[in-house]
Amino acid sequence: MKELSLAFIGFGVVGRGLAELLIEKRDMLKSKFNLNVKVVGICDLKWGSIANDDGIDLEKALKLVDSGKKLDEYDAPARKGLSSVEIIRETSSNTIIEVTWTNIETGEPGLTHIREALSLGKHVATTNKGPIALAYKELTSLAQAKNVKLKFEGTVLSGTPTFNLSWTCLAALDIKRIRGILNGTTNFILTEMEKGLSYDEALRKAQELGYAEADPTLDVDGWDAAAKAAILANVLMGGDLKPKAIDRRGIRGISVDEVLKASKQGFKLKLIAEVWREKGEVKARVSPTPIPAQDVLAGVSGVLNAITFETDALGEVTIIGAGAGRRPTGYALLNDLLSIARDL
Amino acid sequence: MKELSLAFIGFGVVGRGLAELLIEKRDMLKSKFNLNVKVVGICDLKWGSIANDDGIDLEKALKLVDSGKKLDEYDAPARKGLSSVEIIRETSSNTIIEVTWTNIETGEPGLTHIREALSLGKHVATTNKGPIALAYKELTSLAQAKNVKLKFEGTVLSGTPTFNLSWTCLAALDIKRIRGILNGTTNFILTEMEKGLSYDEALRKAQELGYAEADPTLDVDGWDAAAKAAILANVLMGGDLKPKAIDRRGIRGISVDEVLKASKQGFKLKLIAEVWREKGEVKARVSPTPIPAQDVLAGVSGVLNAITFETDALGEVTIIGAGAGRRPTGYALLNDLLSIARDL
Repeated sequence: MKELSLAFIGFGVVGRGLAELLIEKRDMLKSKFNLNVKVVGICDLKWGSIANDDGIDLEKALKLVDSGKKLDEYDAPARKGLSSVEIIRETSSNTIIEVTWTNIETGEPGLTHIREALSLGKHVATTNKGPIALAYKELTSLAQAKNVKLKFEGTVLSGTPTFNLSWTCLAALDIKRIRGILNGTTNFILTEMEKGLSYDEALRKAQELGYAEADPTLDVDGWDAAAKAAILANVLMGGDLKPKAIDRRGIRGISVDEVLKASKQGFKLKLIAEVWREKGEVKARVSPTPIPAQDVLAGVSGVLNAITFETDALGEVTIIGAGAGRRPTGYALLNDLLSIARDL
Repeated sequence: MKELSLAFIGFGVVGRGLAELLIEKRDMLKSKFNLNVKVVGICDLKWGSIANDDGIDLEKALKLVDSGKKLDEYDAPARKGLSSVEIIRETSSNTIIEVTWTNIETGEPGLTHIREALSLGKHVATTNKGPIALAYKELTSLAQAKNVKLKFEGTVLSGTPTFNLSWTCLAALDIKRIRGILNGTTNFILTEMEKGLSYDEALRKAQELGYAEADPTLDVDGWDAAAKAAILANVLMGGDLKPKAIDRRGIRGISVDEVLKASKQGFKLKLIAEVWREKGEVKARVSPTPIPAQDVLAGVSGVLNAITFETDALGEVTIIGAGAGRRPTGYALLNDLLSIARDL
């Protein structure tokens, strides 16, 4: 049987989403994929750190943290208190799950974690947008040099297939343009505004439902969408764009009038991220865009995300699904682990 | 370099769609996939038959047939006049492209071709719904016994990823329910009726545009959708359904009133194929169904096709794209060839 031994760097909502699925699907992974997944380390700035090369009791760790308790209280054998880099270096892990917070200006601390892991010849599965948006080429080269895999399905559209879809099902196509609704928070706000809410009311509702942060800047100013657009541009279209260099307009303070005017003309106003090739260059833009009713992206409402790939032989292909959430994003990592395991 | 040597059984629109893509993407297949694709036989009831184990000049054959000429006029070295079964048996082909016409009652002649090819240890890529809808289990067992692959991406949603999507990107998910708009002709008719056309007017328009046959029975009575529903049920959900056994209502003679009544209530009337599990049994149904506006399937108009997979960890994932056409269906076969080549 194949075995992956994981270290979790970050054990927030996403890391625990993967942990939950690993427990739930343990038998299926063995029977269907001939794969045993062992966890040898968990490290989280808030919840603490445990490590054991013989295996951590994942149920126990998950239950502790899900009930708000620190990993200090983990009562099976484990080394405690190792730092994230120590967990990467000193455990027998062959795969690092990097799920710390996203910083799209520096990529840290994710960038350091991923560089460290790849340099040591360990596979990496991450949902952290920062490192991939800022350093995709460097990190892929490093992974290739070390003959390991770097997977990041969850950086765009959470577990809804994006990169794995492109690499397997669309691989022989020329992708000419990508258009997407890549941020659920702003799509939710715009959908609520179509129903007549003001921007402030819709934002408050998004915050109450946990879709928007107290400081919604990253979402409403289009930074999150720009980071994802950079990832799509660099990974799928051979671009070399930084999020900051992308022509970006968010939806902050957008007026009900603007939304309803589009509606009256049969359009839906959507925050669209677009990536395309122009005179041999890859370009990207994020902006509120009126979408005609017959375009399937017009039908993507609420927190749903979507991407339309414009291709040479297949025309337009659109995938729509969750763009966030504990289980969907955890599933992105699980799917990445299966890709890693395929060639073991 | 890996090599596939193909025999085309059928050289209609779909076969020629693949031929066109093989010519167009020849260099890319070599550079990106390390794959050389050679054609050693072509057989079509209407266009005739040529075979040469050293390779057929595909440009020449395609140009002939595209300009309405028979393969008898092919002026490079070739054996002519072999039957379909002889082409399968007597060429050095390692892969058979089965793209003859669909018969969902008998599966013939595709079923005979596929059985013959697999029995001889040849891979098969097909877009023929009949054999897969009627004999998926038998054919898969035969392929496994002979250690070859049977691929059929194009039987549902043409080249829009369905099976390859499920097998790669959704493989670790439990699919609880599948709902789809699997027939472009009926979706086009319903979309036109929303604009006020009568059923007869909309059908005539579909016929004029080449979307509907002179005898539209297979489409408008839901047979095509039922065959595809059977394939989805049997391949992706472990069912064992025949198209005839599926609870089926088409759209023949549907009234403008019925369509507009749905519209007025904020719904779109769609011919929906649905497959689900109920008390351990896999069930399927095809019927005109009012879809609420917030469901992404409501936004799928004209000849577009779509499938929503309802899953355990990822919620609903929807893929939307072409459901027919020379290049999209040709691409389905190309993608199947890449799957076959992957393990060569």
